[in-house]
Formats: sequence, structure tokens, C-alpha cells
Amino acid sequence: MSHVYGGYVSRLIEELGRLPGIGGKSAQRLAFHILHLPTEKAENLANAILEARRGVRYCSVCCNLTDADPCLFCANIKRDAKTIMVVEDPRDLAAYERTGEFHGLYHVLHGAISPMHGVGPNDLTMAALLKRLQSDSCKDVQEIIIATNPNVEGEATALYLAKILKPLEIKVTRIAHGVPVGGDLEFVDEVTLSRALEGRRTL
Amino acid sequence: MSHVYGGYVSRLIEELGRLPGIGGKSAQRLAFHILHLPTEKAENLANAILEARRGVRYCSVCCNLTDADPCLFCANIKRDAKTIMVVEDPRDLAAYERTGEFHGLYHVLHGAISPMHGVGPNDLTMAALLKRLQSDSCKDVQEIIIATNPNVEGEATALYLAKILKPLEIKVTRIAHGVPVGGDLEFVDEVTLSRALEGRRTL
Repeated sequence: MSHVYGGYVSRLIEELGRLPGIGGKSAQRLAFHILHLPTEKAENLANAILEARRGVRYCSVCCNLTDADPCLFCANIKRDAKTIMVVEDPRDLAAYERTGEFHGLYHVLHGAISPMHGVGPNDLTMAALLKRLQSDSCKDVQEIIIATNPNVEGEATALYLAKILKPLEIKVTRIAHGVPVGGDLEFVDEVTLSRALEGRRTL
Repeated sequence: MSHVYGGYVSRLIEELGRLPGIGGKSAQRLAFHILHLPTEKAENLANAILEARRGVRYCSVCCNLTDADPCLFCANIKRDAKTIMVVEDPRDLAAYERTGEFHGLYHVLHGAISPMHGVGPNDLTMAALLKRLQSDSCKDVQEIIIATNPNVEGEATALYLAKILKPLEIKVTRIAHGVPVGGDLEFVDEVTLSRALEGRRTL
């Protein structure tokens, strides 16, 4: 389809079309948008890609993606160092930050155990977490909150983590399952409804 | 939202979010996809943007976007130089190329007359078209096919073009309006149905 455009345009369409969720038509639309941008704006976009890819590293403490090592959470002495929340992904960390309710530190696994996709514990940052918890900096940690996703992989990861963290004798908790706030009971699946019942609390 | 990520990641999300049709969530998803790409692939994407923006120019003959001047259509001696199709956009040109039914040359206007958006004839490549038609290279042109979009702006542009091309005494035609092939009459609007009736042909 893109052979009617010259080499540069075809290559741009092809590269954009490799991004997730960007099909052929969208790639074409984006490419023409970029071609009509002022050169400076197109360069800003290209440089943002290059700099992010080159400049971003993993925090040596919590494995979050960061510009500076340690990351802004690990370096922030105002955060509560007694609690560590384990998440699958930097986006999950961002989601919890948006709640403004969690003030502890994080640990980013960069995935979940998934035999289906060939992801085992060694592909995640679990060893780094264990090492971190055994180091001097973590001697005050009182609770590990496992906030992996509420799906099969996330649950398996939570159970596995709980097992390997047991010898450390630190309290390990899991975020609650239940009906989502603002949801309609009618449309909530049976498993969630059962979990919400199990987790009921006295008012 | 993106302040929880470092500067590089935030900037990448911001730049991606400026692209048309890419909202905040998509920009975040694309950014993390790019961060997890091998460096080489991220560089390919950035370079495709830079090279396309720097390397692509307008064909001095037909105003199409091209790597080389004249473009591959204008440079192709096998194309029928007796017919020129006027389109609004390189994408429309690509659409007609896909039909495989048109073998003439093109002229790209880069838009349509739209007083609403402040686009007048001088913002388009009409002067270049007139100059082209009066040059020696076009002395064999027998027909100009106006293939602007079938909407208000496209129709206005077609009428305006027909008027300014009249003194040249070259045949000027407009692509047919009618019911789309594979469509269902029931769902076709009244204007299209009227045009289809007007344009009826003997079988």
C-alpha cells in the first residue's frame, strides 16, 4: 500500500505501524501529521524517543523506571520506609500514586508469573526484592503489600511471593478484592462477588 | 498524571500525546512500549521521523510529497501524460493508485477551499497547477479530472478550479457521485441518492 509514497514516507509509516494498537490507516495518518509538523516539533518527538530510550534506567533499589538512580521515591526521605508495595508495572505504581493514599516505598516486578507466556520468577525482579529486604536499609520494613493485578497471573505471583517472603518474618498483605466503587452489582462477575462476600467487614 | 515518572518518560508521554488521536492512556502505553524496545528499534523509529521530516519535499511538478524531485509519477515516462488528476491530499492519490485504474499524472492541492478554516485558493497549489498547464511539458494534456472530496469544501474547490481552468480550453471533468458499491440504498443519504439518479447511465 505504501509503495506509492517515497522511501522516507513508507519507512515512517512502517515504523509507526509497528507500535501497539497502531494499524495501517492510523500509521498513515500519523505519518502525514508528522510530515506537516514544523521541523522543530518533529525533532522534539524524535529526541524524546531517543533520550527516553537512552536515559531511562532501572532504579537499583526498587527496579522502577527512572532518570536518576535511586528513583524519586527511593530517594525521598519523607516516604514511609516501613511499608513496601509490590506492583507488576510502573503504570500500576502511577495508578497508586494517583490515589494519594499510599506513602510507602515500591518494588516493581516488571511482569507477573505466567507459564503460558514463559515468564517465571527469574524473569521478574524477585531476587532483587529479597536482596533488598535482607539489606541494612530495609531492617525497619514492617509490611509488604502485594498489589499485583487481580487476574490469574497476578494471583499466582502474589502466592509465590508470599511463600518466598515467609522466612523473612515480615507481614505480607494482599490488596482487597471486592466490588468496584461506583459499579453496579448486577454486572459484577461471580468470582468478584464471592470475594466481596468473603472480605466483608463490620460497619 | 505523568509527574510520577521521571523527566524523560514524562516528556516522551507528552510528545506522543500531541499526535492526533493519541490520548493520555495511549500515549502512556506507547511510551512504555518504546522504553521496552531494544535500543536499535527505538532508534529506527526516531530516525524514520527525522529522516522523513528532513528528506521529504514537494515535487516541483505535481506538488506531491516525495524523496526525489520530480516524484516517481512525474518521472515515470510510462504514465499517460495526457490526463492529470487533481486530488486534495497524497492519501487520495494513494487511494486512486490502489485502484490500478488510473495511469495518468497527478496534481496535489494539499487541501480544499474552506472559508470556515481560513483556507483560500492561495493556500493551495492552484497557481502551480496553472503554471504547469501553461508550460511546454503540458501541451499534450487533454483532460483534467477533478477528484477532490465529495463534501462541501471539495465541491467548492472543484467549481473554483473548473472556473479558473476554463480559459485554457482543456476538458475538465469531475469524478462521479453515486451510491457506493456494496452499499445498501436504505442507508444512503438523500443528496447521494439524487446525484445517483441524475448521473444514471443507459445499460
